[in-house]
Amino acid sequence: MTFFQKTIKLPPVPRGFHLITPLVADAFPELKALKQGMLHVFIQHTSAGLTINENADPTVRHDLERHFNHMVPENQPYYKHTTEGSDDMPAHIKASLVGSSVSIPITNGRMNLGTWQGIYLCEHRDHGGPRTLVISAFGH
Amino acid sequence: MTFFQKTIKLPPVPRGFHLITPLVADAFPELKALKQGMLHVFIQHTSAGLTINENADPTVRHDLERHFNHMVPENQPYYKHTTEGSDDMPAHIKASLVGSSVSIPITNGRMNLGTWQGIYLCEHRDHGGPRTLVISAFGH
Amino acid sequence: MTFFQKTIKLPPVPRGFHLITPLVADAFPELKALKQGMLHVFIQHTSAGLTINENADPTVRHDLERHFNHMVPENQPYYKHTTEGSDDMPAHIKASLVGSSVSIPITNGRMNLGTWQGIYLCEHRDHGGPRTLVISAFGH
Repeated sequence: MTFFQKTIKLPPVPRGFHLITPLVADAFPELKALKQGMLHVFIQHTSAGLTINENADPTVRHDLERHFNHMVPENQPYYKHTTEGSDDMPAHIKASLVGSSVSIPITNGRMNLGTWQGIYLCEHRDHGGPRTLVISAFGH
Repeated sequence: MTFFQKTIKLPPVPRGFHLITPLVADAFPELKALKQGMLHVFIQHTSAGLTINENADPTVRHDLERHFNHMVPENQPYYKHTTEGSDDMPAHIKASLVGSSVSIPITNGRMNLGTWQGIYLCEHRDHGGPRTLVISAFGH
Repeated sequence: MTFFQKTIKLPPVPRGFHLITPLVADAFPELKALKQGMLHVFIQHTSAGLTINENADPTVRHDLERHFNHMVPENQPYYKHTTEGSDDMPAHIKASLVGSSVSIPITNGRMNLGTWQGIYLCEHRDHGGPRTLVISAFGH
């Protein structure tokens, strides 16, 4: 078994759901060395997350953003964590709903995703700035 | 360390939450070879997901389905991704809420689940068809 | 590659989100043996979960608890799983929303978390009692 690990920095993106599959694959050519294995992508932030969803129609990403805003609204009367702006506490909640990592099987040197699957960066802040990922892969 | 990987196809099920623990265990006898390890189950779809929840009382599965429909309703006025039917966009959102994979420790050749835990296939489409899982396990 | 695994029991905590990072690190000194690897923390229960969120301001934990109660209320008219108390079915739903495990990269003998990240025990029952975690780590 082999183990690879690398830290990469993503450029800032606007609030919303963003497809980053090619970015991860390009930053991590180590993937190609594994016949069978696992890829783990971890985001080192608490107001952004990672998920897997449809890689084709951009309206899926639009609707996810709209519905997450509906399900986790800003300015709820019971929020106490409000000093960093009205988008901050909802961002923390959304981050726990999607999670901080995705793990994907590797087969024959590639992520073994379904035809329509891609990795999303879920940016929940209005101005989240650059985001750091720790990417790990292992297998043989 | 050893690494096993296999793709299996699940038969179509109706929309809802379905217990699939025995199905995964039976399809993957390689588990028994590992004294300590990890099992990773990954679904290659974006309108269905996987989660771990109660393996006994079927009303838990019923109530999960009802509440997910309440939390992520069909026909929201802001949905733009509507051409594949009113159950499609909610299915994408629900898939990101539960996630595309579960990972479970392996101890003495078995999934080391709690007494009441089982693996659920979360089928969010009305007619999702067969679903493909990629199962990986590693350890020693 | 090396593989470590250990079961630990957490003392009972009140309903809410609780920071347990030091508890996990202290219970699992095996971490220090790994230069590069993965940590997997798994909870063997279906009415409690694990997530990663902000480790500093306790109002984040407060607001998460308040918003989860808003998003998954008790006593919904469609709940059928009601015999174990009004906090039980919401606890199952919340457990699937946050998930049963977190996985974190290990770098130079430590969890490679972001500055503000910590592991939360999400206790969704009023009186959940002690909770059992299975902790696994592997790498080289």
